[in-house]
Amino acid sequence: MTYRFSSLIEGLKPSEIRELLKYTSVPGMISFGGGMPNPKSFAIDEIRDIIDHVLKTNGDLALQYGSTSGMLGLRQEIAKMVKDTEGIDTKPENIIVTSGSQQALYALPKVLANPGETVITEAPTYIGAISAFNANSVKMLGIPLDEHGMKTDVLQSELERLKKSGSLPKYIYTIPTFQNPAGYTMTLERRKHLLDLSEDYGVPVVEDNPYGQLRFSGKKVPSLASMDQSGEVTYLGTFSKVMTPGLRIGFIISNEKVVSKVNLLKQALDLATNSLSGYIALEYLRRDVMAKQIPKIIELYRGKRDLMISSLKEHFPEGSTWSNPDGGMFLWTEVDPSIDTTALIKKALEKKVAYVSGAAFFPHGEKRNNMRLNFTYSDDEEIREGISRLGEVVSQELQSVRVA
Amino acid sequence: MTYRFSSLIEGLKPSEIRELLKYTSVPGMISFGGGMPNPKSFAIDEIRDIIDHVLKTNGDLALQYGSTSGMLGLRQEIAKMVKDTEGIDTKPENIIVTSGSQQALYALPKVLANPGETVITEAPTYIGAISAFNANSVKMLGIPLDEHGMKTDVLQSELERLKKSGSLPKYIYTIPTFQNPAGYTMTLERRKHLLDLSEDYGVPVVEDNPYGQLRFSGKKVPSLASMDQSGEVTYLGTFSKVMTPGLRIGFIISNEKVVSKVNLLKQALDLATNSLSGYIALEYLRRDVMAKQIPKIIELYRGKRDLMISSLKEHFPEGSTWSNPDGGMFLWTEVDPSIDTTALIKKALEKKVAYVSGAAFFPHGEKRNNMRLNFTYSDDEEIREGISRLGEVVSQELQSVRVA
Repeated sequence: MTYRFSSLIEGLKPSEIRELLKYTSVPGMISFGGGMPNPKSFAIDEIRDIIDHVLKTNGDLALQYGSTSGMLGLRQEIAKMVKDTEGIDTKPENIIVTSGSQQALYALPKVLANPGETVITEAPTYIGAISAFNANSVKMLGIPLDEHGMKTDVLQSELERLKKSGSLPKYIYTIPTFQNPAGYTMTLERRKHLLDLSEDYGVPVVEDNPYGQLRFSGKKVPSLASMDQSGEVTYLGTFSKVMTPGLRIGFIISNEKVVSKVNLLKQALDLATNSLSGYIALEYLRRDVMAKQIPKIIELYRGKRDLMISSLKEHFPEGSTWSNPDGGMFLWTEVDPSIDTTALIKKALEKKVAYVSGAAFFPHGEKRNNMRLNFTYSDDEEIREGISRLGEVVSQELQSVRVA
Repeated sequence: MTYRFSSLIEGLKPSEIRELLKYTSVPGMISFGGGMPNPKSFAIDEIRDIIDHVLKTNGDLALQYGSTSGMLGLRQEIAKMVKDTEGIDTKPENIIVTSGSQQALYALPKVLANPGETVITEAPTYIGAISAFNANSVKMLGIPLDEHGMKTDVLQSELERLKKSGSLPKYIYTIPTFQNPAGYTMTLERRKHLLDLSEDYGVPVVEDNPYGQLRFSGKKVPSLASMDQSGEVTYLGTFSKVMTPGLRIGFIISNEKVVSKVNLLKQALDLATNSLSGYIALEYLRRDVMAKQIPKIIELYRGKRDLMISSLKEHFPEGSTWSNPDGGMFLWTEVDPSIDTTALIKKALEKKVAYVSGAAFFPHGEKRNNMRLNFTYSDDEEIREGISRLGEVVSQELQSVRVA
């Protein structure tokens, strides 16, 4: 699939991309590259039943143009859902339904920043956010993270520096829970610090939380939006990981000013989100399918996370490390600093295994020896076999580097 | 619905919008404002059957992330469809599926022009194109049209003028067939002239053809894309008017350079179009539902066009004129020049009838005494009653203007 592959090749030259493209249709390729949920996580029968019901009762509306901000009923259900799951108090007027979270990632720099202005991100951060910032010619300043999330002490000194230079960033973009790509979760302490800094410096926060409900272990940490007193935290949610991604339903929760700007932009972007998808999501929530489905997804993914970690232990050379995330979809793997994981992709593809090179997740490609490995999409057997192949590729590379 | 209403209020001040908003939920409101197809045109039972089949046979893929350019199978079927219906020779590689035509309207100025550069449009032109140009900070230069379409002699002198000033426009945007809002169709002669000018001046053409298959009368005129020798005509199509708009499926046909730029941008905009919608459109074409459905839609809309025209004859004051389009969805009505149809909206809403003021369709609001009337959405009885109400509003306004 083009999308899965395209996410591997960020940061490569066109000639390198052409070189790699010949591998995409190779049979037997095992990909840890994409951010795809496992199809076993889809409640296909329930969705079929829901669509049948929607078309029988509301076909005229479900197939017609919808409103730009999304159906009121769906926004009411989303408000209930985020209250229950994330403790966020909001109203339908503060919600806008988007065509997947990606549309929100594109729209926010467009309405909150001008070309050439700066947004703060984690480094590494989500590749789709990087492409949205780039498409809007908005600059990124990456703040490093560790297993406790974004380093807010570094954030503080950067904000201070930027304030002195008279050019504060337009907002701080963070994925605090099960971060993509690193898998880390920001501690409560750092969340409080981040919110304090946001208020002190008058810089809004955009909290992206696609994986929050996919917690396999550990204790829930409150969302930034639930702790927000300033009204300056914008929250991004999505149905892609807890319903299905193909229906392209995400949402933004924010203050009226931001929602109304995004609403105006969305009229130019695509008029409205798919109406049928909106009705499906509404009924999915009303029937409580999500609440029934999520524990199944968690069990499925917990097993896959554990399997991938034990496979890494078995097959990766000593000195390699990986995150051990309490949820989400990715492991962040670091190999010996002598290895450039972007250059290594070609060798991995020759062995029929794919990953995304860590450099793709750094706003400016800063680090060269990481891989993001998705553990949710592949079958268990593919995880075992794929990590074994990848371990071999890394070990061979390490040997050849050492010999040279 | 927000969208239907929002299209009425382009060009108004926020205070005026708040004033008008109180009318939106008034029961008994008859709206000729939106560009919505009639729900009777939807093949709901066939679509239900198609979805059931898709989810039973391909549920995993139809609910998963899709490829950014759209499924190969769908692009193959679209290539066949445009060959059959519009005589366009193309290949799947030259097609990209978009989230409705609106996404194409947004993406093209983004990839083909820089902020501050100029695109040529018809004046009046589609309101959604205007908002896409505005969102991209691209300037519009409007070329007047008459019942034979865009005045290509004016286009020629403008191109000459711009060439001399050293700033040729980035492309020419046209809706040559059943133009929105005017309903006019460009003659074959002018189409040839337009293509010649495009080649002579090296300015590409973007042909937007949402209504081409909805011809009620008169003889088909070949699409610009079918006559193109240069490879510089980009063609925009949509399933919104011939399947359903709620599924948000449009497409771009262009040369590789344009398709690849849009593909890259689309990764930032929304990653991919709704997969389920893609599968529905594919199956809709494979089962030939579109070919069976279109004659029914044409018959339905022809009757509504005729009914609206006879109602206008009956109820509008002398001196009013309207287009008599051979297809599409809109009548373009001109009332006495003393009347400002934007100011008149409030009085119309008080009488429970809505339309879009003509000024909204001019890049710079040039003309003040037109209305765009949609004839496809309303029931026949609503058309009779709504035009009667609107005729009364216009007649009263005319009297009060004359008295004053």
